[in-house]
Order: sequence, then structure tokens, then C-alpha cells
Amino acid sequence: MRAEILSIGSELVSGQNLDTNSRWLSQQLGMLGVTVAYHTTLGDEMDDHLEAFRTAVGRAGLVLMTGGLGPTQDDLTREALALCAGVQLVEDAASLAAIAAIFERRNRPMADRNRVQAMFPEGAEPLPNPIGTAPGIWMKIGGAWVAAMPGVPSEMRRMFDDEVVPRLRGLGLGGRHIIHRKINLFGRGESDIERDAMDLTARGRIPEVGITASEATISFRITGSGETEEEAIRQAEPTAATIYERFGPMIVGEGTADVADGLFAELARTGATIATAESCTGGLIARMITAISGVSPYYLGGAVTYSNASKTTMLGVPTERIEAHGAVSPEVAAAMAEGIRNRLGATIGISTTGVAGPTGGTPEKPVGLVYLGLATADGTETRRLDLGIERPRDFIQIFSAKSALNWARLVLREV
Amino acid sequence: MRAEILSIGSELVSGQNLDTNSRWLSQQLGMLGVTVAYHTTLGDEMDDHLEAFRTAVGRAGLVLMTGGLGPTQDDLTREALALCAGVQLVEDAASLAAIAAIFERRNRPMADRNRVQAMFPEGAEPLPNPIGTAPGIWMKIGGAWVAAMPGVPSEMRRMFDDEVVPRLRGLGLGGRHIIHRKINLFGRGESDIERDAMDLTARGRIPEVGITASEATISFRITGSGETEEEAIRQAEPTAATIYERFGPMIVGEGTADVADGLFAELARTGATIATAESCTGGLIARMITAISGVSPYYLGGAVTYSNASKTTMLGVPTERIEAHGAVSPEVAAAMAEGIRNRLGATIGISTTGVAGPTGGTPEKPVGLVYLGLATADGTETRRLDLGIERPRDFIQIFSAKSALNWARLVLREV
Repeated sequence: MRAEILSIGSELVSGQNLDTNSRWLSQQLGMLGVTVAYHTTLGDEMDDHLEAFRTAVGRAGLVLMTGGLGPTQDDLTREALALCAGVQLVEDAASLAAIAAIFERRNRPMADRNRVQAMFPEGAEPLPNPIGTAPGIWMKIGGAWVAAMPGVPSEMRRMFDDEVVPRLRGLGLGGRHIIHRKINLFGRGESDIERDAMDLTARGRIPEVGITASEATISFRITGSGETEEEAIRQAEPTAATIYERFGPMIVGEGTADVADGLFAELARTGATIATAESCTGGLIARMITAISGVSPYYLGGAVTYSNASKTTMLGVPTERIEAHGAVSPEVAAAMAEGIRNRLGATIGISTTGVAGPTGGTPEKPVGLVYLGLATADGTETRRLDLGIERPRDFIQIFSAKSALNWARLVLREV
Repeated sequence: MRAEILSIGSELVSGQNLDTNSRWLSQQLGMLGVTVAYHTTLGDEMDDHLEAFRTAVGRAGLVLMTGGLGPTQDDLTREALALCAGVQLVEDAASLAAIAAIFERRNRPMADRNRVQAMFPEGAEPLPNPIGTAPGIWMKIGGAWVAAMPGVPSEMRRMFDDEVVPRLRGLGLGGRHIIHRKINLFGRGESDIERDAMDLTARGRIPEVGITASEATISFRITGSGETEEEAIRQAEPTAATIYERFGPMIVGEGTADVADGLFAELARTGATIATAESCTGGLIARMITAISGVSPYYLGGAVTYSNASKTTMLGVPTERIEAHGAVSPEVAAAMAEGIRNRLGATIGISTTGVAGPTGGTPEKPVGLVYLGLATADGTETRRLDLGIERPRDFIQIFSAKSALNWARLVLREV
């Protein structure tokens, strides 16, 4: 059985508010082993309700909807469900009493228009709402089971957990368990990685593997399923092992872990310390490191040397070197990494200097040209990145910062 | 003409990632006066593509889609559009050359798989993508105009602005003009500001005013409309003037401008320079400043002094002072701000030291306790923030960073 999720509200389809209910419901259904085929968002128009409801019950076996159950004229879900099923709306005495009781508890008079919230399509089952005035609706239309829930996220979540999940189990759904593993890589492009993973991402393979990219970090996503959670985990395991074997050094972590977390793991493992000297990344490397709680024993500190004078004052980069080679040069990157390492007594010093753009590029030193430096007790190395003049400033800064963090991670990995 | 927006990707329909493209496109179409009737999200299955594409072109006059234009096996948009229109896919030489040029600029070999990104349904118009390898597609299917754009938000937005909007104007859309003005404030809580703006946010008021909050910055959003853009702007103007009059010093800027942009404006106006010394914000202040292009004449640099020793080495904070008062103290915040100001010769030095949590708090110095320092030629002041032990690390870092930036902005405002 496949599901469709409808979210109802003009404020959503107009872009005024962002719909987060559909995502949450997709995650919950995924964990129950129900595949979600579509999300549809629609506004407060009756014709659009009928069109979207009929489309949904025609192509999905389970339709979850949120919103449109309030007491105002904009709230059309009840009526549209009745029209769609070809039945009348009838008042449910128990629901009316429950709504009245909520107003009583809040010491407020119940407005007359709230009565409409106790109206249900004939034959539908009311879903109690212990924390709000809008009860939900459970019914069958054609071949599809339909659950209508309030749009308020807290009410929707509680009703889904308490009322909808037991009914899904009653339909024999939710017997299957699904788990996801997200393995994150840095250091090569998405299409490069895809080429080396064609066997894993092939359509129809079990377990299924997808590839996504976010801020220059590439992720494999393995979906394992089974009769039990353990079985689902076991199903994903060999594929995860293959990814680790094939992409080993590029893997920075799982779940939400990004390059800085991968570096943190190596710092904690080796006991090494790190210090940062940033020009074009302007504090982003420091920010990525210090967003991690518990990193303070390993991160000594850093300098953001945006001006030439600050490179000299804070890092001891010789003025002549900046004059001879320019601030964006391997020579200055090396002196910056050495400077911060020596001043703070760190195991590793890393540095960036480059042209983040969109202005400041020259034919010799275009936007996207970045030098990284890395200093250890064994000496200092530099690397050159050519990220392309068409790249936005933000990408150049993020990619450069992650490249420097990743370089340090790989160096520590060999320790 | 009504529009439908499709977002394509199994990571979206499964709930792994949150779709934000549809909302942005709805907002843009709204400003052009085009009503969006539906959003539909679908996964990477060919049958679902055909079902959703056919439904959309059957019920909408304009269909915007994002995603599925990458080089991998999961990317089905091109093929599905061709099937839906009943035409072949043909290679476009100019698009292929543009893709090859991007790889060349990045000094990386073009993978064979990327060739597929130059394939278009016969008769379709390629939409150039100057910042990525996936060109977009513009075509007509039945009675509907269709624009397919990449899923990467930065690429999608640029392509919409540069390529899709002119084509929509060519279709005679955008007759009614809607404009939004977003005025951003920092320094007081959302409910405080709301209480002082009840007359502006009243339902039914023209122009409409909403209040939103994001990362401790509060925004008023005014929606003006009219037959012409000038008329829409004129409608919003008196309301904007009222907000400026009532909230004056708290206003940091409009649109995407945040506290750092407000500071940048004051730096540029006064010609002052600034330097930063960060402990608990760990480079976030530097990052917020250097995310702004053109800031380099005014931002000299900064230190991220995460360890006690680095506070002494990089900023000259006396060891005895740290021992006597602790690193989280007004005395150390003052010495940090003075230290960075003196070392870099800046007009203003700002500093932060505090407990960002979730660990590291004590009864005397709990999580959420932060001291800010601000040093000028007139002397040095400190401020204490008590953000509350229940606040997440990220909030404490962001609020502290913005508070320091805002303090410097307000000081310069008086110059």
C-alpha cells in the first residue's frame, strides 16, 4: 500500500508558511514500512479540495491530510470529504460534548461556530483531540483509507500517534520496520562518486541506496527493511560495509556528522590539538569546529586575519612575503599555518587565503582561487583550489573551509 | 492562469529532507500576481513522474518543477517530460559545450554521465545554468507551460530570476504587482514587539503586516499590491514609515539584511574599523561579518581564543586576571576587547566569553551566562547576558554573536 499526504491551507500553497507536517508524517510512515508516493499542498478553495481529494483516493491506498478542520469559513475539509464520499454531514454528540468541555476547562464561552467541528461525514469515525477543539476524521472513500487531522503540529502529532497508528496496525500495516543509514563523504564530486557506486545505486537493488549532496558534502542513504528493527539493521549492514571499504578515507561520519565532526573524532582519538588561521573563510572554519560541543580540549583557537597587517601582527607573516607574493599565495598560506601553530603550540595549524568574490578577482588571481596551508612538526604543505569564478561567495567559503578541515582529518587519520 | 509546483526527489517525499523550493517559488509567483493552486512532491519513480506530470499539465496553466536534472540514474525529469510530451530526447550542442566548460574551469574531467544533462525533449528550450552543470528546460505540454529547474536552491533561484521570469512576462503574466518589504529588528523579543504593533498586524488591515522571527532577529513583513509596481510600493510606504518611526534604533536593515549588515552600513558610513575577540561564539561573529562581500576595508580581523592560553598569547589577557576571575567574567571580556582593539589598531574591539553548553555550566556560571566586551578610544564596557540553561548551544552562540554586533552598531549609530 502506498500513501499520499495532503496539507491544506492557503498560507502554505502561497508560500507564506512552510509545511513541515508532511515531512514528519512521511518519516513516521517510513518507519512503519509504508511508502509515501506523493505530498500535495492545496489552498482553501472547494474546487481544489475536490480535485486533490479525488486524485489522492484514486492513486493511493492511504491518504493522510492535515488542516482545514477549524471552525472558520476557510475550513473546508469536513465538507469536501462528505462531497467526495457522496454522504451527508451529521453531528456527533460525543465530539460536541468534548469540544464544549475544552472551552469549559479554558474558562471561555464556546462560540456558536465551533459546533461545526462536531460535524462528520456519515459513517466516518471521529478521532478524539485531547489538546484542541478540532477532532479528526477516519473513513474509507473508494479503495482508500483516509485520516484527516488538524494542521497544528502538536495536535496532529498526538492524534497520529494515539489514533491513526493503531488503526494502521489494524489494517495490517506497520508490521514492517524500516531503518535509514546516512553515510557522509567529502573530497570528490557527486558524479564521480556516483560512477564508483553504480552497482549500489542500481534501481531495484535491495537494500536501496541513494546519493545526495549538501554544501559540498555527499551522502549515501541506505534504506534497510525487515520484520523487526534488528532485521532491518542487518539488511543494511553489508551495503554499509561495502561503502566503508570502497570509500574509506573519504567518509567523515554518519547521520548529521559533517567534515568538522570527522576531524573532531580524529582529534579525540589521537589527542592532537589544532589551531586555525583564516583569511578568505573569515572564521567559518572556527565556527564549524566550535559548533561541536566538547571540542575545547582539542581546539586551541584561531586568527581571522582579514587585513594584510593582521596577518603580520597576529601570525607573524613577514611583510616582505606578502609584498613579494601577494596575500593570496602559497607562501602566505604556509606562513599563516606555521604562525598559528607556533603561537598556540598546536599539533596542527591550518590556514586559508583566497578570493571568495564576487569582487576582488584579477586575471592572475581570479575569484575561486584559494590556497590552503597545513603545518605540523614534520613541516608545512600548501594546496591550491580552483573553484571557478562562477561560484557564489558562500560556496567558495564553505568548500574551502571543509577542504582545510578534511585535509587535517586525513593527516590525523594516518597517525 | 493558475500554477502548480512540483518538487522531485525521494529524499523529499520520504521525509529525509525538507522541501523549501516550493515555498520560495510560491512567494515569487505571488509577487508576479500568479496564484499557485498546488504543490506536489514525488519520488524518483518513472510511473510517479508520469502520473504527477500529467495531472499537473491537466489542471494548471503553468507548471514549475525542481529536481531530477542531475547526471545520475535517479534523475528522471528529462525522460519523463519527453514521454509526457510524446517526443524524443535530443542532444543540445550548446548545452553540452557549456557543461564541458564548467568542468574545464574547475580543472576536473567531465564524467561521461554528465553528457545526459545536455539531452532535451525535442522542441524544448534549454535554460542556461551559469553556476551548475544542470541546464533547465522550458517547453509546452498540452495547454500548460512547463519550466524544469535544478533542485539545488541557489541554482534554481538564479535560473528562475534570469530565465523563467522573462518568459512569464512574455506570456503576459505578472499583470498585478505584489511587493513585500521585510524590515528586520534586533534587540527585543517577538511578543514585546508584537504588543507594540497590534494596530499594524490587525487582520484585514491594508497593507497586510506580519511578524516572524528567525535566529533571534524579528521581521515585519509588509505586503503591498497595485496595478503597477510603483502603486504597490506606494501602498506599503506609509506603513514602513510608521515602523521606522516607532522602532528606529532597533531596525538593522531590510530584506535579507541582518545585524551584521546593519553594522556594515554603520562602518561604511563612519569609516570606522572593527576587530573581534571570541571565546564562546567561536568564530561566529567573524563569520557573520565576513559573509558580507565588500567588508574587508572595515573588518581588520579577529581572534578565536577558545583556550585560556590563547587569550593570553593572542590578546594579551593577563594570566592572573583569568586565574582571579575565571575566563567567563567581565574582567576577561574587557581585556579581550581591549587586546584585539590594540593589536589590530581598530576603532572598536568587541568580545564574547561565556558558557554555550550543553556541558561546562556550574551553579555560579551556568549555561547561558555570557559576557560581552566593547572597547573604543573612550574606554571599555562590558555587558552580561543570561540566556537560560535550557537554551540550545546554537541559540546561545547566535544570540551572543548578534548581541555583540548590535552593540557595536548602536555605538557607531551615535557617531
